[in-house]
Amino acid sequence: MKTKTVYLTYKTREKIEIVRITDEIERAVRDSGVKEGLVLVNPMHITAAVVVNDNERGLHQDYLRILEKLVPYGDDYRHNDSGEDNAASHVWRQFMGHQVVLPITKGSLDLGTWEQVFYFEFDGKRSKRVLVKIIGG
Amino acid sequence: MKTKTVYLTYKTREKIEIVRITDEIERAVRDSGVKEGLVLVNPMHITAAVVVNDNERGLHQDYLRILEKLVPYGDDYRHNDSGEDNAASHVWRQFMGHQVVLPITKGSLDLGTWEQVFYFEFDGKRSKRVLVKIIGG
Amino acid sequence: MKTKTVYLTYKTREKIEIVRITDEIERAVRDSGVKEGLVLVNPMHITAAVVVNDNERGLHQDYLRILEKLVPYGDDYRHNDSGEDNAASHVWRQFMGHQVVLPITKGSLDLGTWEQVFYFEFDGKRSKRVLVKIIGG
Repeated sequence: MKTKTVYLTYKTREKIEIVRITDEIERAVRDSGVKEGLVLVNPMHITAAVVVNDNERGLHQDYLRILEKLVPYGDDYRHNDSGEDNAASHVWRQFMGHQVVLPITKGSLDLGTWEQVFYFEFDGKRSKRVLVKIIGG
Repeated sequence: MKTKTVYLTYKTREKIEIVRITDEIERAVRDSGVKEGLVLVNPMHITAAVVVNDNERGLHQDYLRILEKLVPYGDDYRHNDSGEDNAASHVWRQFMGHQVVLPITKGSLDLGTWEQVFYFEFDGKRSKRVLVKIIGG
Repeated sequence: MKTKTVYLTYKTREKIEIVRITDEIERAVRDSGVKEGLVLVNPMHITAAVVVNDNERGLHQDYLRILEKLVPYGDDYRHNDSGEDNAASHVWRQFMGHQVVLPITKGSLDLGTWEQVFYFEFDGKRSKRVLVKIIGG
């Protein structure tokens, strides 16, 4: 059995930003030498999510607009009583599904035509890590 | 270490439809010969979800009604400016949790009494694939 | 390859309650002897979720308040026609992301500074199980 761990770091320009990370995951998979297995892609911070969906700018705007409509950033939250302002970020990342596990087949990510991996940053402008854990044979 | 990959194909009659797939996953697990391990069940299309919940028709209606209420299919979405009409489908599949990882114990799915696996199709009437990746020993 | 399966049992005092379970997962990982791998933490009941987020009481209140606002417990649901009253619990657990997969590195959970594991009980006061499945080398 082989395993490999990679820590990716992202520091977004905007507080809320969506970054495509498929290529970094694919590179980690190839470097691992794993031919058949699984790769976990998990943000190590709890105001961000890793999401598989479409590489389409309009859809990304829709996601952010819907999250803001359902859970407005500026609402009154108990979490923000502690001096934070990011309660909504914690909720959004759960609603988006915060992590993904991807299949590795024949040494590559085994994704459908439109499956792309994204880092959804909901409280950025600072360095944050995404853990990539590969396991297989 | 053993691995096995199965691609299941679903073409639903309705655009929006919920299909129970527990038996197909169980069959893939048994065919794999894996006694202890994990199985990833991941839709390869980004307007569908794999969900573990109750095999109860009323609850399935509730899910669809709640998703429609929170994120109405017919609302105005930027994604639909590109000629698509399925922006809401992309969002629904995230809110439902788009994929599952299931435990394999003693050669079978290790599920609770009421845990059943479903394919939630949010943009159907065409052939779509679900990837089953089994890893273990 | 090594694997280990642990069944944790929780019986909450309240119908809706959030329990921190990081230490139990860490203990299972150490007992497994797995140095590099993955651990699936999956509720075996379909009105509960396992969630990674912040150990902050205010935020937990926010989660419950938001879920109640978006999917009110007392609304009219088809699932509840069968004599149940917990339709909303089934939905909430999906919106929170019902399960997690965590990385194991050097024999321990490889978590970010603020990542803590919680059991979100949405229909408690009775014994319910959480399955911990560890796989790795």
